[in-house]
Amino acid sequence: MSDTLNRIAQVLEDRKGTNADNSYVTSLYHKGLNKILEKLGEESIETIIAAKDAQISGDHNDVIYETADLWFHSLVMLAQLGQHPQAVLDELDRRFGLSGYTEKASRTSI
Amino acid sequence: MSDTLNRIAQVLEDRKGTNADNSYVTSLYHKGLNKILEKLGEESIETIIAAKDAQISGDHNDVIYETADLWFHSLVMLAQLGQHPQAVLDELDRRFGLSGYTEKASRTSI
Amino acid sequence: MSDTLNRIAQVLEDRKGTNADNSYVTSLYHKGLNKILEKLGEESIETIIAAKDAQISGDHNDVIYETADLWFHSLVMLAQLGQHPQAVLDELDRRFGLSGYTEKASRTSI
Amino acid sequence: MSDTLNRIAQVLEDRKGTNADNSYVTSLYHKGLNKILEKLGEESIETIIAAKDAQISGDHNDVIYETADLWFHSLVMLAQLGQHPQAVLDELDRRFGLSGYTEKASRTSI
Repeated sequence: MSDTLNRIAQVLEDRKGTNADNSYVTSLYHKGLNKILEKLGEESIETIIAAKDAQISGDHNDVIYETADLWFHSLVMLAQLGQHPQAVLDELDRRFGLSGYTEKASRTSI
Repeated sequence: MSDTLNRIAQVLEDRKGTNADNSYVTSLYHKGLNKILEKLGEESIETIIAAKDAQISGDHNDVIYETADLWFHSLVMLAQLGQHPQAVLDELDRRFGLSGYTEKASRTSI
Repeated sequence: MSDTLNRIAQVLEDRKGTNADNSYVTSLYHKGLNKILEKLGEESIETIIAAKDAQISGDHNDVIYETADLWFHSLVMLAQLGQHPQAVLDELDRRFGLSGYTEKASRTSI
Repeated sequence: MSDTLNRIAQVLEDRKGTNADNSYVTSLYHKGLNKILEKLGEESIETIIAAKDAQISGDHNDVIYETADLWFHSLVMLAQLGQHPQAVLDELDRRFGLSGYTEKASRTSI
């Protein structure tokens, strides 16, 4: 799987056992699922607004940055629920075919 | 990077050159950025609702499924804007440290 | 209170006792709270996108239309939860002062 | 129209001409449309989460409070765009019939 997503998932798991007062993730865990979901929702809104602005300006820095925030907070949500991002990637693999996507894709409506 | 995300990005790029009438992705491209962003927003809402239900039921199938939908539609948005998911992963790597995250994490407030 | 919101709340209440197969509201009630909340979320996203487009085009028809959709679906949510929009208006009145808002507003940080 | 919505729209209009440093609304105007839309999106997410919690707990205080926040920020959006909430209520009236809604409603699919 993604080295990046895997590494972040590991960091998020490690954060569960700590009480680092200055950790953003620890702070989110303590605030609970509702606060994590609010952040996930906020980042999706900010991604949408950044995409609309990119469409006009041609500058994609903000939309990349906000998408990173969106993915990050969905990883925090998964960690809080005791789930691993590999389950999401497995679901995507299932849809797109674990191998031979080109052949499969030509037969499906993806 | 992630084999899964990379493979999907490639499929999404390939879909740009086709006119497959029965392709969901081609249909989204034709409807334009607003429709893609509406789908991204919808999937974030469905992820949030599924997470709330998972918190009660302990069944995580829906939240995994909806998160896959959310990530997929963010990949479609990136493709429509001519961006590659690697740029998002690079931004995440930058925040978490390209290497030695354990040492770095202990010094940062992630 | 608003004649409009009051009238819609009454229609929504009346719809609870019927089984009109061709009623959009009855259909939403039957699908349940999750579907109603998904619609509420969708309409908020569509309102945001329409506002961004209005900012560029100067045409406000879509943003008015989508805001009507957003308010309507929040009324359906309230009805499904057994709540009346007057409770929301009362909360807004409380914040802005039931009377003499001009004087109060000058003293508050609204 | 609604005395409440009308009164708030008037307050929001009055705030445009002032520079009250301690005014939340003035602060939102200065931050611009994107920040107002982010707040609108946040409040829709918080309304959805509060509705899910109300479904379990039976306590509707939060969902009323968050819906008030949602409506309030949609009024701020309209004001920033130079639009009046009466246009939204007119659109809702148009859909539900300006008069005789009971008779009409029985003939329509609302």
